[in-house]
Amino acid sequence: MSMRDEMVATVRALQDHICSAMEAEDGSAFVEDRWERPGGGGGRSRVLQEGLVFEKAGVNTSVVHGELSDAAAAALKGQHGVQSDSRRFFATGVSLVLHPHNPMAPTVHANYRYFELGQEGAPDAWWFGGGADLTPSYLFEDDAQHFHQVHADVCDRFDPTWYPRFKAWCDRYFYLPHRGESRGVGGIFFDHMNDRDPALHRSFADACGRGLVRAYRPILARRKHASFTPEQKQWQQLRRGRYVEFNLVWDRGTQFGLRTDARTESVLMSLPLTARWQYNHQPAPGSDEQAMVDVLRTPRDWLGRSEGAG
Amino acid sequence: MSMRDEMVATVRALQDHICSAMEAEDGSAFVEDRWERPGGGGGRSRVLQEGLVFEKAGVNTSVVHGELSDAAAAALKGQHGVQSDSRRFFATGVSLVLHPHNPMAPTVHANYRYFELGQEGAPDAWWFGGGADLTPSYLFEDDAQHFHQVHADVCDRFDPTWYPRFKAWCDRYFYLPHRGESRGVGGIFFDHMNDRDPALHRSFADACGRGLVRAYRPILARRKHASFTPEQKQWQQLRRGRYVEFNLVWDRGTQFGLRTDARTESVLMSLPLTARWQYNHQPAPGSDEQAMVDVLRTPRDWLGRSEGAG
Repeated sequence: MSMRDEMVATVRALQDHICSAMEAEDGSAFVEDRWERPGGGGGRSRVLQEGLVFEKAGVNTSVVHGELSDAAAAALKGQHGVQSDSRRFFATGVSLVLHPHNPMAPTVHANYRYFELGQEGAPDAWWFGGGADLTPSYLFEDDAQHFHQVHADVCDRFDPTWYPRFKAWCDRYFYLPHRGESRGVGGIFFDHMNDRDPALHRSFADACGRGLVRAYRPILARRKHASFTPEQKQWQQLRRGRYVEFNLVWDRGTQFGLRTDARTESVLMSLPLTARWQYNHQPAPGSDEQAMVDVLRTPRDWLGRSEGAG
Repeated sequence: MSMRDEMVATVRALQDHICSAMEAEDGSAFVEDRWERPGGGGGRSRVLQEGLVFEKAGVNTSVVHGELSDAAAAALKGQHGVQSDSRRFFATGVSLVLHPHNPMAPTVHANYRYFELGQEGAPDAWWFGGGADLTPSYLFEDDAQHFHQVHADVCDRFDPTWYPRFKAWCDRYFYLPHRGESRGVGGIFFDHMNDRDPALHRSFADACGRGLVRAYRPILARRKHASFTPEQKQWQQLRRGRYVEFNLVWDRGTQFGLRTDARTESVLMSLPLTARWQYNHQPAPGSDEQAMVDVLRTPRDWLGRSEGAG
């Protein structure tokens, strides 16, 4: 089996695995929407909207190929230092964003992807990218520690330098300069990885995708029925506004998708169902809301491990 | 009085004039927030949040000056074809976005601004920019016609070629390529205007700002107490999501503001209080919602005047 086919099988199996686990937590089912890309390939978008636990949950896989547009080729060259002038590309990946109703239950995002330029079987360039990060509205330190620990354990099975490197990379990537805040409490992020055997990178993506369920499900299970006040729900809505700001203004994948011929509904599946912007809202000093913002302004080393330079 | 001082007086008077009219419609008052810009100058943000008529209304003036950052200088050079290498700048303007609660009452945006590069009194470059556009959730043709007619009348007093040119420019500018939709039913838009006496451009900005009240207030007055269903309110929330998409992804002023040292809360004052994203929402064929989208996909010539090339 070619690496293309192996990674397609991997992302589809991860989609099934993750959706099953989340359906068990929610009690309702994802609805699948299959779509085709005019230029080649297509995707399977699974969405669970206004469920019992999730306000909006999307788990998407896509397998796309064809010719890069000028804009897409220029963006890739800028972003990844890709040297190939080939316009033939292949990309496959799984990506998910889960937004629970309960403001005590964090939003989670993960994405694992494989990209090739050139001919199948003998690409000019190839790489893996991905990551997973947790975005709570209220800080529970044990949630953040657990999420990081599961991902650190997965990374350590492959390379002990990866977790500190990918953790720091995640803190740099999911950052809103105009707010001086991180999007959440981080996780891991990596891109343009191609320095090992492709089979090892694929196996790492697979292990991370399975780790996502072990990392997130127990957090969701213990927070999904927490009691909360209308004010806490409103704070969650303001934090959702920040999530929208990151995705629409700073996320490279979203910017790239909206400026090329990607399927808009799949690109914007990551947005929450509802969000709120209040002029100049400031949390009260000493409040739980302020404690959350403090961590977003100064990312923590959740596992007490020193971090690499990334 | 220098053009700087004259335009500062103009935008402050417009802010007072517009806020008074909107307070009379709402029955509640704007709250003013004065702020200073570390690099020079500052602003007066006036916000009316969760009023009786407005969900969120912001009317902002600013007077800023100092040295352009590298990023800001590069962006200006790209956008306006500015030739000056001067980093000394001066900018003043009034900008407003009014989001009513009632889904039958449209959102309106307007902005009038003056920019100088170089020394006061002998600038290397100067220009005026601005415009006003209407964003309904439900189409009322007489509202769109009235809004355009008032602006066309103002334009015609200055130059009969301006309305068709600025109307077409508005349709091109307030456009979401990833949705294939305009933001609303348009209005006027112009930028980098400096081919007449500066006093005439200032006078035009003043006349447009005053025209905004005549254009918008009667529409608001006849829609603000309209009856509506929960489904219509939800459609408004989805349209607010599109408004957020335009402002965060495509609006040059917002992109510029968030990437330079502009005051984030003033830049994002334009966002609605609440917004919604539903996966792959499609209006029912033949519905009022579909009629709205049809107009956004094919902008109309509201006054039956042929349009210039812009």
